[in-house]
Amino acid sequence: MNAVYYEGAGRFSLGSCEIQPPRAGEVRLAVAYCGVCGTDLHIAHGAMDQRVRVPQVIGHEMSGTIAELGPGVQGFEVGEPVVVRPLDARGETPADKGVSHISRKLKFLGIDTPGAFQQSWTVPAFTLHHLPAGVDLKLAALTEPLAVACHDVRRAQLRAGETAVVIGGGPIGTLVALVARETGAQVVLSEVNPARLALARSLGLQTLDPTRVDLVAEVARMTDGAGADVVFEVSGSAAGVQAMTQIACLRGRIVVVAIFSQPQEVSLFDFFWKELELKGARVYEVEDYERAIDLLGAGRLPLAQLVTAVEPLERLPAVFEELSGGTEAMKVLVDCR
Amino acid sequence: MNAVYYEGAGRFSLGSCEIQPPRAGEVRLAVAYCGVCGTDLHIAHGAMDQRVRVPQVIGHEMSGTIAELGPGVQGFEVGEPVVVRPLDARGETPADKGVSHISRKLKFLGIDTPGAFQQSWTVPAFTLHHLPAGVDLKLAALTEPLAVACHDVRRAQLRAGETAVVIGGGPIGTLVALVARETGAQVVLSEVNPARLALARSLGLQTLDPTRVDLVAEVARMTDGAGADVVFEVSGSAAGVQAMTQIACLRGRIVVVAIFSQPQEVSLFDFFWKELELKGARVYEVEDYERAIDLLGAGRLPLAQLVTAVEPLERLPAVFEELSGGTEAMKVLVDCR
Repeated sequence: MNAVYYEGAGRFSLGSCEIQPPRAGEVRLAVAYCGVCGTDLHIAHGAMDQRVRVPQVIGHEMSGTIAELGPGVQGFEVGEPVVVRPLDARGETPADKGVSHISRKLKFLGIDTPGAFQQSWTVPAFTLHHLPAGVDLKLAALTEPLAVACHDVRRAQLRAGETAVVIGGGPIGTLVALVARETGAQVVLSEVNPARLALARSLGLQTLDPTRVDLVAEVARMTDGAGADVVFEVSGSAAGVQAMTQIACLRGRIVVVAIFSQPQEVSLFDFFWKELELKGARVYEVEDYERAIDLLGAGRLPLAQLVTAVEPLERLPAVFEELSGGTEAMKVLVDCR
Repeated sequence: MNAVYYEGAGRFSLGSCEIQPPRAGEVRLAVAYCGVCGTDLHIAHGAMDQRVRVPQVIGHEMSGTIAELGPGVQGFEVGEPVVVRPLDARGETPADKGVSHISRKLKFLGIDTPGAFQQSWTVPAFTLHHLPAGVDLKLAALTEPLAVACHDVRRAQLRAGETAVVIGGGPIGTLVALVARETGAQVVLSEVNPARLALARSLGLQTLDPTRVDLVAEVARMTDGAGADVVFEVSGSAAGVQAMTQIACLRGRIVVVAIFSQPQEVSLFDFFWKELELKGARVYEVEDYERAIDLLGAGRLPLAQLVTAVEPLERLPAVFEELSGGTEAMKVLVDCR
């Protein structure tokens, strides 16, 4: 059993990995580790059954090594460690205005096509990024969510010396806070879950619990009345949406990272009055992967502390159930070797 | 009777203008014309009684000539035509992050201090802008709302060749459409009022009525499926807020010009999915006044067609009542000479 198949309606089965020989321009990978993403959990809840064709292997936060090169692939060698940027924008049209990474016909590998919760994975070579020699493949499996955080911080145009508030301390919010701190900003992470708060504090992050202190007053105090230069809304909560416009400074920038399935009550008056900016941020671009890999290689981010478990592949169906129960897990990796 | 005083609770009185000799750094103006702004109407409805100290002359969309220079004022001459940028940001603090024009202790002349619905008005010299020689002072009274439109278009970073949709065809929306067209954009004005639609068409603007055609489908058709590069929400309506995220292209920019007193249901999902940007825009900065005066001097904008009436000062109380009744008026000027 070296592959897990999503069968639809929230059900999974264990099975055999189909070894797909790489065609021209493709590469076959030996998957090392693959992280469980919030989107995978969403699929596991049956919420994306209209999009995911079953049976299908899912998973996209992976690291691995090159097992086999297809015809015409250059610049990579069998055995070298790589990660996949799981976006296939070959369907891009002029109506996408050059914004390839979110183009309308984008295929997301591991959602719209087979993914990485299996031993062997064949992908287009253009999705690959080299990893530094000697990298820990466990930590390298965090490249994809780290690239999300790099994209979010880049969208915010965050500069050293600015104050950033991250609302929501799950895996992405925590990574955003770490990347923002690495950028030289003063960072505060707002979170309500005690376990997540404790983890964030163990990473040296300044935290606050908005159910215990007044977030608006606290940010005002910290910024001499100015408010935060940048706010990342990662909580996906109505309270976060309400707070984000209140705590931003004049011309403050707000980045919406969370996925809100329903319209939210937003104070457009605050946008007018303070000339706020709001930007949506989705996945990543090439340079975000490059930044993430640089950060990984530099070894300054405490990524190992975010990995709360490494599970064997056959336990993945059980992991989905456990995560759905609201555990204290941050990032769970699956060993696909 | 050469001044109109707001008395609170929606009441006005006619009275005598107090001639205030200019102190150091001040200038006394002979007011020529003063336009009626939506904010004035808001005051006339009693909606800003907590902010406006009564009795007070209101009005801020003015043109005039210099009647008297206070001590130390240089660069201006008695008799020359000027307009006032009615913002006093002398209360600015470091917490305002250098964003003077909307600083927290900003005083808006004609709201927080006496205004221009009177024959003689004394103001700080730093609020003045020179006008081109020979300018029509009636049209010059449109400088303030035109500067609002210049600010909105500048906030949008609108470029020649882009497509802009303006939702709402009142005075500001129409001026935004005209400035956007002058910038070289393809502009569509969405409006539901037949009289405003007819006026916009007479200005050569492309219009549509979203109660008759499907705005989203029409913008898609016009842009080969891409959507609008820029959307200006000037209608202040829930329908406008819903449409603005639907019609914007990938990474489209939305500028909120309307003043929404209540939180609105906003599709943050669209912001995420299309990486949209939203910016609030409020009043103007020096360069917006300079652009507005350049446009006024160039004479290419059909500003005269926006002036639907020029009323004597003593009719101002009646004008407020008439405008409250939902007339077909666009911009009403008051002759204060």
